[in-house]
Amino acid sequence: MAATAIDLNADLGESFGNYRLGQDPVLIPLLTSAHLACGFHAGDPLVMDETVRLCRDAGVQIGAHPAFPDLVGFGRRVMDVTPREAETDVVYQLGALEAFCRRNGAELRHLKAHGALYTHAAGHAELAKAIAAAVASVRPDLLIVCQPGSQIERAAAEAGLTVAYEGFVDRAYNPDGTLASRRLEGSLFHDAGRAVEQALRMATEGTVVAVDGTVLEQRVDTLCVHGDNPDAVDFVRGLRQRLAAAGVEIRPMREVVERRLQTA
Amino acid sequence: MAATAIDLNADLGESFGNYRLGQDPVLIPLLTSAHLACGFHAGDPLVMDETVRLCRDAGVQIGAHPAFPDLVGFGRRVMDVTPREAETDVVYQLGALEAFCRRNGAELRHLKAHGALYTHAAGHAELAKAIAAAVASVRPDLLIVCQPGSQIERAAAEAGLTVAYEGFVDRAYNPDGTLASRRLEGSLFHDAGRAVEQALRMATEGTVVAVDGTVLEQRVDTLCVHGDNPDAVDFVRGLRQRLAAAGVEIRPMREVVERRLQTA
Amino acid sequence: MAATAIDLNADLGESFGNYRLGQDPVLIPLLTSAHLACGFHAGDPLVMDETVRLCRDAGVQIGAHPAFPDLVGFGRRVMDVTPREAETDVVYQLGALEAFCRRNGAELRHLKAHGALYTHAAGHAELAKAIAAAVASVRPDLLIVCQPGSQIERAAAEAGLTVAYEGFVDRAYNPDGTLASRRLEGSLFHDAGRAVEQALRMATEGTVVAVDGTVLEQRVDTLCVHGDNPDAVDFVRGLRQRLAAAGVEIRPMREVVERRLQTA
Amino acid sequence: MAATAIDLNADLGESFGNYRLGQDPVLIPLLTSAHLACGFHAGDPLVMDETVRLCRDAGVQIGAHPAFPDLVGFGRRVMDVTPREAETDVVYQLGALEAFCRRNGAELRHLKAHGALYTHAAGHAELAKAIAAAVASVRPDLLIVCQPGSQIERAAAEAGLTVAYEGFVDRAYNPDGTLASRRLEGSLFHDAGRAVEQALRMATEGTVVAVDGTVLEQRVDTLCVHGDNPDAVDFVRGLRQRLAAAGVEIRPMREVVERRLQTA
Repeated sequence: MAATAIDLNADLGESFGNYRLGQDPVLIPLLTSAHLACGFHAGDPLVMDETVRLCRDAGVQIGAHPAFPDLVGFGRRVMDVTPREAETDVVYQLGALEAFCRRNGAELRHLKAHGALYTHAAGHAELAKAIAAAVASVRPDLLIVCQPGSQIERAAAEAGLTVAYEGFVDRAYNPDGTLASRRLEGSLFHDAGRAVEQALRMATEGTVVAVDGTVLEQRVDTLCVHGDNPDAVDFVRGLRQRLAAAGVEIRPMREVVERRLQTA
Repeated sequence: MAATAIDLNADLGESFGNYRLGQDPVLIPLLTSAHLACGFHAGDPLVMDETVRLCRDAGVQIGAHPAFPDLVGFGRRVMDVTPREAETDVVYQLGALEAFCRRNGAELRHLKAHGALYTHAAGHAELAKAIAAAVASVRPDLLIVCQPGSQIERAAAEAGLTVAYEGFVDRAYNPDGTLASRRLEGSLFHDAGRAVEQALRMATEGTVVAVDGTVLEQRVDTLCVHGDNPDAVDFVRGLRQRLAAAGVEIRPMREVVERRLQTA
Repeated sequence: MAATAIDLNADLGESFGNYRLGQDPVLIPLLTSAHLACGFHAGDPLVMDETVRLCRDAGVQIGAHPAFPDLVGFGRRVMDVTPREAETDVVYQLGALEAFCRRNGAELRHLKAHGALYTHAAGHAELAKAIAAAVASVRPDLLIVCQPGSQIERAAAEAGLTVAYEGFVDRAYNPDGTLASRRLEGSLFHDAGRAVEQALRMATEGTVVAVDGTVLEQRVDTLCVHGDNPDAVDFVRGLRQRLAAAGVEIRPMREVVERRLQTA
Repeated sequence: MAATAIDLNADLGESFGNYRLGQDPVLIPLLTSAHLACGFHAGDPLVMDETVRLCRDAGVQIGAHPAFPDLVGFGRRVMDVTPREAETDVVYQLGALEAFCRRNGAELRHLKAHGALYTHAAGHAELAKAIAAAVASVRPDLLIVCQPGSQIERAAAEAGLTVAYEGFVDRAYNPDGTLASRRLEGSLFHDAGRAVEQALRMATEGTVVAVDGTVLEQRVDTLCVHGDNPDAVDFVRGLRQRLAAAGVEIRPMREVVERRLQTA
């Protein structure tokens, strides 16, 4: 049975110092959730403060987006950290962002690992457990965003945390449900039509077509859209219309997750 | 009237990655308060986690020790940051440390700016206000550690925060009550006897002798001892005995501050 | 007597990791000299390598652009470093960039301090001497770019280095010849016409009008144009035409400096 | 046939800012070669300058010790960088160190990748080629230090570079000639006797005993000793005596390599 509600999330607050990235002020009002960089791959304290305010003002729910400590690599390079290093790195970033939420009268609601931390933890139990342990030790009420079937899902369950299942509208999927590497040609869709189609399929049928044509089950609570290209805003506007036309409500992540849990 | 109780604090958790600094495990049990580096001048997430645990286990009260973002300079070089940058830098560091406290069942109790942030804010109202604003926006219940008469004291008062007055046992004072620059010969006492003498004078008489011989009033709630030299542990043991012999109780910072406020 | 030839320089290679800044590929062919970020305020090794190649292919002469170690502040915040720290920071950055020049068959020709290092050294002899000492110890043949009358000019002379005098086309000048702080309203001209006017005046008359209307002598060898705004390319194209129309040749920095030295 | 001469090298200049590591001033005179950290995993510009001088004054030959950009991890964590990133990271670090050599009248003679960059490149051809390409493009006359049989050896040969074969006196070897991970118990010998024995065996017989007892051929030109433990100086003194007693001369790396090449 298809989901009838879905959350739209994007990774935001990725500016840093003099560097501007994304179009947060115009994109945020089109979302229901956002993951904010916490300084390790992007985001500095000023940016975090500003982005929290933008989300708060737009009623968009805020999540932490911790990463490997790799600014020059934008957190997209796997680092062979120990579980203890990963766990404490996540605690640090989560805590920093939470302080910005508190001071701005906003609430931190969820956490999603960024970039290589997300994709590597998806397939590595120890790293996934480290992320889950970090969240469980500081804010066990946070949702953990992950791909269905990933090690993060498993680790979150073991740690007593609730997950939100995420689908990617413009990333190619491998037949095993993992994301194709960003370094591969074609792994990032530049064709908006194709991204909309993938989004609709996930939202209404709970499936995705992998790079080899395999149809995979991907029942997701939240769709990740990208905000760092010039057409992002138009794309998301169009996606919202198509989702509405298909009878899919766009609702905050926690609500979508709760509906799923009640149905199950 | 002399203080009859005083807090002993040190700046700890200053290791970083492969680099070890200080003798935290042996020094901590001799203290009543500690300020923990938060990653900008020293301290990494692993170190923060470990140091919070050491303090918690020893019953030592924990404060944040935010700094300018200058690891190679150990936060000892003034940086011409904007007030907004300073404010958000402090929020970030405070939040990160607080998460480590929470996950370890410890409480964050106070905040003291580190190094050049502390000394520069002491004399610059805008910077002092930025620090106070950061604390007021996230944890208005924290004590702010400052030198009596400093701009930090003034800014904290304006922001409705409670201060703890700090004295330095092994640093030379200028006649205006500021600390002599670390770059000046003799600004850091290497003679333990001289440091003990300065500590006793502050604890019992509420005064300090400046570099030019002027006797300054310095009624302080907490004495800062240094932990990063080989003799630190012996020094603090000796200091505790001398304070006890002089009838000065060593009590946690908040208790000392509350006694003072009740007396006033 | 007015200059009849002038160099056009810009600060380039300021991208970093995932962050793109400026329009180097289209701007470079319009310049005769470029200063390349060396990793401390901007620029990473990949960016340095690419920018050196772009300059080499366009026949644009390459200078180093060392900065305070402050990526998040883009090197625009004064840091109270010691002279030895400044000197070795400059050596480090100079050496790194030179290696990229050598591997790409290009030559390093000059050095200009970036941002706060430039403006602070302009008025502080010790810092200026540190920069000059760094260059003198590694590549005494490099030109040092500075404002006429600055401490950098004096320090370079004392160190036996040759300077190139620089004027800024779109920055407001204080009556003492220093640049108005970037934090002040109006210090950066957003009006292209005003910038062209300032450039022409410096190139043809050797003067600039300060914020209070004072006419200052500013005989310069090179004009600094900014490459980090969308209109930069059009601006520089227009400026080149106006300079040509006014009989000013656009020539590489070293040639302009040598003409000046022969005339003097 | 056993080597009759060997070089003694250590990884030095690993202090950073306020953090002191190793005992460079006393250790350096006991060595014939040193690899100096270049800022990415350790070492800052001041430290690099000082360490180059110490080596120069002691007549110790200087090599670059580039690493992954991971200060908090001390360059010991594998990072999944692209070959282009690795290549330019090495160029950057090599160039920076070379500038310190030049300004101090010293010569840069060799290069050895540090930590995870060394061990990972040993088994990964693409990464090894990136390192070799960096050296070949800037200083093709430098020796590249590597383990015999490693991918670095192969890549250096393809790039037309000369290698120096390195053996580790206090690290456990896997049966395939790679080093056992630092994270494994027993991978680092704390027993000086065992380290001396391994050193002598490599220097005189050209073999090493792996963790499973296998005797591996390891004809090496240089022995790496560690400088970051309290007993390092005594250890190296003892090692020198034992080598001398065994008829092994301690000679600079290049000389040992040239003897080997002439013999072969």
